[in-house]
Amino acid sequence: MPKIPKDRLEIYRELKRDFSEDKFINLHPIQRGGVLSPEARRAIIEFADGYSTCDWCPPKTARLDMIQRPPIAQFMQDLAEFLGMDVARVVTRCREAQFIAFTMLGNPGDYVILDSLAHYSTYTAAELARLRIKEVPHGGYPEFRLKLDAYADKIEEVRRETGKLPAAVLLTHVDYLYGNLNDAAVVGKICKEYGVPFILNAAYSAGVMNVDGKKLGADIITSSGHKSWAASAPTGILAATEEMGEKLFARSRIVGDWSQRKFSFKEYALLGCTVMGAPLMTLIASFPHVVERVERWPQEVENTRYLVEQLERIEGTRQIGVRPKEHTLTHMESDGFYRVSQTHKRKGYFLYEELRRRGIVGIQPGLTRHFKFNTYGLPREKVERVAQAFLEIAEEQKLKAS
Amino acid sequence: MPKIPKDRLEIYRELKRDFSEDKFINLHPIQRGGVLSPEARRAIIEFADGYSTCDWCPPKTARLDMIQRPPIAQFMQDLAEFLGMDVARVVTRCREAQFIAFTMLGNPGDYVILDSLAHYSTYTAAELARLRIKEVPHGGYPEFRLKLDAYADKIEEVRRETGKLPAAVLLTHVDYLYGNLNDAAVVGKICKEYGVPFILNAAYSAGVMNVDGKKLGADIITSSGHKSWAASAPTGILAATEEMGEKLFARSRIVGDWSQRKFSFKEYALLGCTVMGAPLMTLIASFPHVVERVERWPQEVENTRYLVEQLERIEGTRQIGVRPKEHTLTHMESDGFYRVSQTHKRKGYFLYEELRRRGIVGIQPGLTRHFKFNTYGLPREKVERVAQAFLEIAEEQKLKAS
Repeated sequence: MPKIPKDRLEIYRELKRDFSEDKFINLHPIQRGGVLSPEARRAIIEFADGYSTCDWCPPKTARLDMIQRPPIAQFMQDLAEFLGMDVARVVTRCREAQFIAFTMLGNPGDYVILDSLAHYSTYTAAELARLRIKEVPHGGYPEFRLKLDAYADKIEEVRRETGKLPAAVLLTHVDYLYGNLNDAAVVGKICKEYGVPFILNAAYSAGVMNVDGKKLGADIITSSGHKSWAASAPTGILAATEEMGEKLFARSRIVGDWSQRKFSFKEYALLGCTVMGAPLMTLIASFPHVVERVERWPQEVENTRYLVEQLERIEGTRQIGVRPKEHTLTHMESDGFYRVSQTHKRKGYFLYEELRRRGIVGIQPGLTRHFKFNTYGLPREKVERVAQAFLEIAEEQKLKAS
Repeated sequence: MPKIPKDRLEIYRELKRDFSEDKFINLHPIQRGGVLSPEARRAIIEFADGYSTCDWCPPKTARLDMIQRPPIAQFMQDLAEFLGMDVARVVTRCREAQFIAFTMLGNPGDYVILDSLAHYSTYTAAELARLRIKEVPHGGYPEFRLKLDAYADKIEEVRRETGKLPAAVLLTHVDYLYGNLNDAAVVGKICKEYGVPFILNAAYSAGVMNVDGKKLGADIITSSGHKSWAASAPTGILAATEEMGEKLFARSRIVGDWSQRKFSFKEYALLGCTVMGAPLMTLIASFPHVVERVERWPQEVENTRYLVEQLERIEGTRQIGVRPKEHTLTHMESDGFYRVSQTHKRKGYFLYEELRRRGIVGIQPGLTRHFKFNTYGLPREKVERVAQAFLEIAEEQKLKAS
């Protein structure tokens, strides 16, 4: 007798996603850069089974990044080069990449300096590594621009407080709240002056736009395959200079006290192998597509600016964050739509519902006063349909449009 | 101009796997339990895109395990119940599950006791958590049977040495070297007596055979979706009693020193969300199949015993590890095939090549004296074809068969 009754298992049969790319225009702020390329769609089917990458695992070294067939080893090198770094590994998530950097560079109680717009996972990665944090402030409403020069002040502050430098500095290249793009080179320069390792979290930048770690002065780059590299989740990227790579990818030194077993080929912060299946293969299969698409970044930003311009025609509606947009992730504020929601029978849900009725999803249900979207990868005509939908809804709700 | 020249990207196009299930009988010791169910194959296509599970992420709590659509929240509960535990989470890998347990139960320098047949990733997980280890010995050749009673001695040893109990005890339910199945209840009882948390690593057991954590006295169960749950990599399972769950899934307490930001819904050892895409959906889609298949475990073991019996007909060939087999992962020793390899023009590769010529893969190329296989999930007639192939090869190489 199975432990779980059969009828309770019915909900797990024929699992369907609601918002497929072919049926909807999906503006979800975190999803656009992770839509698979056609090549990745073929690869995920081919490598769907469990340990699908491990048919040709080299017996002596037995490490994912050394597998030649499929070309994982070569990919790791090309990935590093593409990011302007010396060495790269695919890990399970960008947050894991950050955790590895924190835990391998710091000791419990050490400080790491991060920007106050960092994703929650940067904070929890520091917490799990048992590090303390200091935040670099931003300038608040409406631009929320980070005070990049303050990285120097914070490094000084840590030195005064602890008598030593922070274990690392982290900058979120593009933040998830406003989609502000930061000039990483400013922070790179400060870190170089102080000799503090500089981690650039490129979760929203690398894979959609050109990121050259060397040029920016980054010692470590973290990124997210499912966020920006047309890959399935979970996939993270951890790239580093040679010097930093030696620290992050240090080999296991543990020895069995009875057996004397050793595992000296294993990179222990990675726990050995990481993504030994389908998502890694989508990342690799999409790589040629990604190398090509980063060149089209200016057009992508242009599409976003167009949509912002159209939305700002609606009364009481403006883009929040640094202007003009330099990234496709966008935060809007709309006193107009908010006012409508106050008297609409569907409350704040009207906006989501009206958009969905027009085949547009990804704006968080219930939000009107502040909402985010991302146009990345949408063809211009779809962006125009989105603009038109918003303008139509505004008109129906008696909002003025200039 | 793209950074990576186009012709170098050619190797990433049309990635193909060599050994698909429909073309080969694959005996790879780590791969059998991770072959997808047909339901999972459909799910991986449906949820292939990046953050495919996040269309309906609840905005206030924003946690993967709380998503109702697809039914992730319900699955976590059913998964816990299926394992006889109170609470479960899907993490990126079994090794990550072990690391989380180690790091949340221990402080740097604390001891964890593990079996000397544990996978390397158990050792590196302890290393990353900065714990020291003590190994429980096994009895050596030919059975390599673990001395389960020695867990008590090791706990005593730690207490004498440090004045306190070890942070945790870990037992590998079925080891990867010999496929020995351990009586976890023995260790569960010892741990209960001493009040030490008992982690059962069920990477090779849960998902193919019935594992009831409560009955075995486990406080924590770790398992691997791509190893034993018909799921894509990477997927790990971390299940616990309510009491232990509170420790493992502790919520974030970090506070931004400038922004006062908090993330009190996030389970910080998981770094928040874990497998937010395709592999999780394969695990869920395969769950009804898994609930059903564990009931067929006796037939699976029977198939393995049959194959062992047939192989042992070949001169100088015997199964290593505990006899008779209680698990489908099997370690063979063959002085016969080894002797052939000494004079064969293809050296030790003849066995692999002769098998492959017959449509059988998964035996490590080059090995003859010791090799492993796993018959899990193969229909009886394919197991019979494997037996026949080995016997044919033996005959061709002039080995006697009884």
